[in-house]
Amino acid sequence: MSDARPPIRIDTLAVVGVGLIGGSFSLALKRAGIVRRVIGVGRTQANLDTAVGLGVIDEASTDPAAAAARADVVLLASPVGQFPALMSQIAPALREHTIVTDGGSTKQDVIAYARRFLGAHFGRFVPAHPIAGTERSGAAAAFAELYRDRNVILAPQAETDSAAVNLVREAWQACGANVVELDAARHDEIFAAVSHLPHVIAFALVSMLAKRPDARTLLGFSGGGLRDTVRIAGSSPEMWRDICIANRAALLKLLDDYGKELELARGAIENGDGDALETIFERARDARQRWLLKEQAS
Amino acid sequence: MSDARPPIRIDTLAVVGVGLIGGSFSLALKRAGIVRRVIGVGRTQANLDTAVGLGVIDEASTDPAAAAARADVVLLASPVGQFPALMSQIAPALREHTIVTDGGSTKQDVIAYARRFLGAHFGRFVPAHPIAGTERSGAAAAFAELYRDRNVILAPQAETDSAAVNLVREAWQACGANVVELDAARHDEIFAAVSHLPHVIAFALVSMLAKRPDARTLLGFSGGGLRDTVRIAGSSPEMWRDICIANRAALLKLLDDYGKELELARGAIENGDGDALETIFERARDARQRWLLKEQAS
Repeated sequence: MSDARPPIRIDTLAVVGVGLIGGSFSLALKRAGIVRRVIGVGRTQANLDTAVGLGVIDEASTDPAAAAARADVVLLASPVGQFPALMSQIAPALREHTIVTDGGSTKQDVIAYARRFLGAHFGRFVPAHPIAGTERSGAAAAFAELYRDRNVILAPQAETDSAAVNLVREAWQACGANVVELDAARHDEIFAAVSHLPHVIAFALVSMLAKRPDARTLLGFSGGGLRDTVRIAGSSPEMWRDICIANRAALLKLLDDYGKELELARGAIENGDGDALETIFERARDARQRWLLKEQAS
Repeated sequence: MSDARPPIRIDTLAVVGVGLIGGSFSLALKRAGIVRRVIGVGRTQANLDTAVGLGVIDEASTDPAAAAARADVVLLASPVGQFPALMSQIAPALREHTIVTDGGSTKQDVIAYARRFLGAHFGRFVPAHPIAGTERSGAAAAFAELYRDRNVILAPQAETDSAAVNLVREAWQACGANVVELDAARHDEIFAAVSHLPHVIAFALVSMLAKRPDARTLLGFSGGGLRDTVRIAGSSPEMWRDICIANRAALLKLLDDYGKELELARGAIENGDGDALETIFERARDARQRWLLKEQAS
């Protein structure tokens, strides 16, 4: 090891929102032996009880400010729509050294909230986004291996304290993740394309099918193709509502681009233009192939 | 066993199009000990050589008529766009007792082709569609277990000989499949919804992303959500081109319904209408959940 720094230690971690993301972060840091105590903060007692019962957190609280007052690191891992209220609540309680970070899927809006609601503490806020997740949610879905070999994006600002960035980076690395820094606007554009848009597409497909009176029959005849395509339509509606609205500028542009591509395919089908349709399908097949090859090589 | 009929025997089976569907049918019937000899018919010698080498077929031919002349059962398992030419070629060569069936993903167009190009032999044609497949294609992708516990749809017509229907049904049952009869128009509507539309949606998404100059970066940051959503965009462009154009009437209607649902979601995002967006996402999540529960129970 060329890195001679001693391993980081977090005495008390507060995880606000004990779901798949927050719960898995807690479990991974516990397993790495980096954190002494984790306080889980949530809205529903049942989920907190599950989290304590499964050893995901050590202690449960429904009071974000009280938990933040005792924490050395606070991870905001609730749906992004709750961040403004949560930041307002915790800001007066934070001790000077306490680092605040988040697991939100959008970064420009979260940074704007932090700038506004964390006030003087903004320099100790490290905007982050772990690129991991499954369609499952809640504390029972959490597992320590979630972040192994996955990317975590950090989007530090000019004001962000570099020691805080280092600690958050090392904490994610201790979870097995690969940490990458990205500009917040570029982050939001990339994830609108590869994550937010696919979720809207999948939700809309299942929603449309579900509205039909024969939905049950249709789904009964479906195979693995539809099942995989709509796996992400099992994701949390509240979380994805917040993400889509928070990242609306980038997402609307991509929805328009997607609508145009779908219109191209539709026109080719209507006109019986096999060549035009095959061109679209081949471009997709080839890109997917190259992408998979690259994935397997890495 | 209450069914006292002796097990079926097929002396010579001709599989026209030795890919995932045709190759797996051959392997499954061989393993069940039902077929003595399988002649594979294809356009490219390399794929036929692979098929013989892997034991998927016993003998290779590039002449559909010559193979059909020796066959007791002919399975058409090429892309549907080739069916008119193939049917014209084999029709004069068929012996009176020979049964012709297919594995095409659309049924109304295939039945119309058979009525026109198989002529007097139409009564021995059994329209069929096995609901199975992966995104892989070619003889090397074939495996005997592909049809285990999967649905196979038969769409016999008023003229279809019932003995021919019985033999085709029992052959698919010997592959481990569950055989269901459906009206051809209803079949096409159902599969436009649960298969053809999802393929167009996935192909269009990857095609749109692939057109961007930053496609490589985007895909490098994508996670499991996009990967599953676009798995079917790895499917054969030629096969799906033919399916989409063959089933265009049903598919266009569904594309329009889908476009409207996407527009609802887009409007909610643009207006920041979280309630409307969450309603769409929840409808999808709940329908997917019910569908999965039903799948697990069956």
